[in-house]
Amino acid sequence: MESRNETARIEGFSDAVFAIAITLLGLDLRVPPPGSQGLLAKVLAQWPEYLAFVASFGTIAVWWIMHHRLFTLIRRSNHALLLLNCLVLLWVTVIPYPTRMVAAYVGTPDLRVAAMLHAATFVMIAACFKLLWWYVSVHGHLLNPDVDARTIRVINGMSSFAPLMYVVSLLLASVNVTVSATLNLALAVFLAIPK
Amino acid sequence: MESRNETARIEGFSDAVFAIAITLLGLDLRVPPPGSQGLLAKVLAQWPEYLAFVASFGTIAVWWIMHHRLFTLIRRSNHALLLLNCLVLLWVTVIPYPTRMVAAYVGTPDLRVAAMLHAATFVMIAACFKLLWWYVSVHGHLLNPDVDARTIRVINGMSSFAPLMYVVSLLLASVNVTVSATLNLALAVFLAIPK
Amino acid sequence: MESRNETARIEGFSDAVFAIAITLLGLDLRVPPPGSQGLLAKVLAQWPEYLAFVASFGTIAVWWIMHHRLFTLIRRSNHALLLLNCLVLLWVTVIPYPTRMVAAYVGTPDLRVAAMLHAATFVMIAACFKLLWWYVSVHGHLLNPDVDARTIRVINGMSSFAPLMYVVSLLLASVNVTVSATLNLALAVFLAIPK
Amino acid sequence: MESRNETARIEGFSDAVFAIAITLLGLDLRVPPPGSQGLLAKVLAQWPEYLAFVASFGTIAVWWIMHHRLFTLIRRSNHALLLLNCLVLLWVTVIPYPTRMVAAYVGTPDLRVAAMLHAATFVMIAACFKLLWWYVSVHGHLLNPDVDARTIRVINGMSSFAPLMYVVSLLLASVNVTVSATLNLALAVFLAIPK
Repeated sequence: MESRNETARIEGFSDAVFAIAITLLGLDLRVPPPGSQGLLAKVLAQWPEYLAFVASFGTIAVWWIMHHRLFTLIRRSNHALLLLNCLVLLWVTVIPYPTRMVAAYVGTPDLRVAAMLHAATFVMIAACFKLLWWYVSVHGHLLNPDVDARTIRVINGMSSFAPLMYVVSLLLASVNVTVSATLNLALAVFLAIPK
Repeated sequence: MESRNETARIEGFSDAVFAIAITLLGLDLRVPPPGSQGLLAKVLAQWPEYLAFVASFGTIAVWWIMHHRLFTLIRRSNHALLLLNCLVLLWVTVIPYPTRMVAAYVGTPDLRVAAMLHAATFVMIAACFKLLWWYVSVHGHLLNPDVDARTIRVINGMSSFAPLMYVVSLLLASVNVTVSATLNLALAVFLAIPK
Repeated sequence: MESRNETARIEGFSDAVFAIAITLLGLDLRVPPPGSQGLLAKVLAQWPEYLAFVASFGTIAVWWIMHHRLFTLIRRSNHALLLLNCLVLLWVTVIPYPTRMVAAYVGTPDLRVAAMLHAATFVMIAACFKLLWWYVSVHGHLLNPDVDARTIRVINGMSSFAPLMYVVSLLLASVNVTVSATLNLALAVFLAIPK
Repeated sequence: MESRNETARIEGFSDAVFAIAITLLGLDLRVPPPGSQGLLAKVLAQWPEYLAFVASFGTIAVWWIMHHRLFTLIRRSNHALLLLNCLVLLWVTVIPYPTRMVAAYVGTPDLRVAAMLHAATFVMIAACFKLLWWYVSVHGHLLNPDVDARTIRVINGMSSFAPLMYVVSLLLASVNVTVSATLNLALAVFLAIPK
């Protein structure tokens, strides 16, 4: 079971979970009920929901890219890796839930709590990803022998930096939800930029 | 990271997003509630909803074909390509939303606004695709060296023509929703025809 | 674009659509609302919904197998094939809709109409598949040169027989919904059996 | 049709069904309606729903791993294998349904019945998997010739042990729902551990 082929199937399964979670986000966008007010006005008033959608989309996209980068370095797989990878995927499948929650609580005092739970999911993805990376880097035989030290340093830095930034975003959400969502989006763009 | 293999994984992830978005469209078709009137009459009365469904299906299908064609020309990938591709996918995952909106607003004065938002999503897909193609054609080293000039000319033409036609469809939707949806469908068939 | 590789990507995209449509069926199973009556009794009373679910599951599964068989014979692809394949996929994505409809109309006089629409979707899949096969068999250069005459005869027979049987099922549904759903299930098992 | 390639496509289709079913679980997590009580309190009160979600996630993940292990041993495919595999997938697509049911019945006397139906789905997956493995081991020509006796012994043991344990969980659910869900989770972790 510990072969390149094994790695290919984990990647295939993970890719499918990322792709489904990212597409399901669109399913949760709510159509405003027909009524007296104009549709366009109602759609524009839903902007915090769209911001949460785009932040979730960007976050799933960027962790797919990170996951992808990581697995280009991994040569072999084992059961612990399989379980740690499932832990990352668990939080990926959870993302649409707090996104929906933020959408439902727009205009209520609990929006901040919803936004904090939203950011907390991002903290969990980043933390589980860090755990996965830590496991792989400790068990060096799982890595491709020709990985250069610089790539390892970059992933080390980014996987430590990301959970901290999401904690900052979580704390910010208790003060200002828009600033927190904007930080999440900015983080997605920053993490996607090549280092 | 810049290898043929990289391109294969982007295609795989994109294919999954297109496939999920196209299948989720069926999930939004609404079952008329049981009542005094006959089911068949109610189903037939829902034809604008079915037209919107088929227009969305055709549009996602044809952009999958276009995406496909484009990636047969691309040899290498980089981070900008990855981000621009995510931008196209963002709008693909959004498509079920205005489709649902059109279905919800059939028989209300706001149907035109819903149809305009529907067409606006198509404008965004086509425009982001154009952006992706522009980036690839400017950075020629991403292309296969054996791409012939005619293929490039055809994609150039179609990717410039499509956003314009969707803008026409958007404007038409403000006048007549059925004509606009029919144009969207006709565009899907036209873009799918080999040049 | 006309290469073995092209065929592989059509198969991959189609596989994903079949897999998503078959899994989405489970999403439409309705949880009976909590109330005075026991849950078990309510679940047992929902058997016609479960029968419709299993008939749809079996039908998607068997057409995936048929699609699969067909593409083992196809060597090359072209645009007409791409469009005809999209037509088959359109009806696959529609299947969850009449399945949901049957579930919603259990216990109402319109159940027969819902079951007829359910069977009509199966007629459309089988008819579009027949069209796809007809196109491929007429344009022999799309086929693998080493396909034996017997395999072609078997697919010829099955693809002509299936639409007719689904028409019979559609007519039966106007008389007895359970008999029609059972016939759909029996057809799925029959078509899956090797010839 | 009986080739390595055939096996690859069954695995691909099955992987997609597992990936979609596991991701759809997240779609069923219910957002508590905005109201007087704090959101955080309402989210914490939903813990039995989250426990059911995690148990379902773990179960689908572990049966994906088991399915995966099994197919590394299989060299060829035939129609009976295809049908038995569809039977396993049928129950995988059903899993979100009782999960949703448990969530809807938290706090009602029928929660035990819902939890028993939840565990019953796990029994069916494990039993169909056992059937699939029995079929493959009886028809030895489907196996890779270089499978060692130990691997066969391990899969034999686990595939017999799992259905029994899920029956125990089903019976436990009639007494204490939390203990039953915890056992399901523990089983997922146990089955995932390499032997």
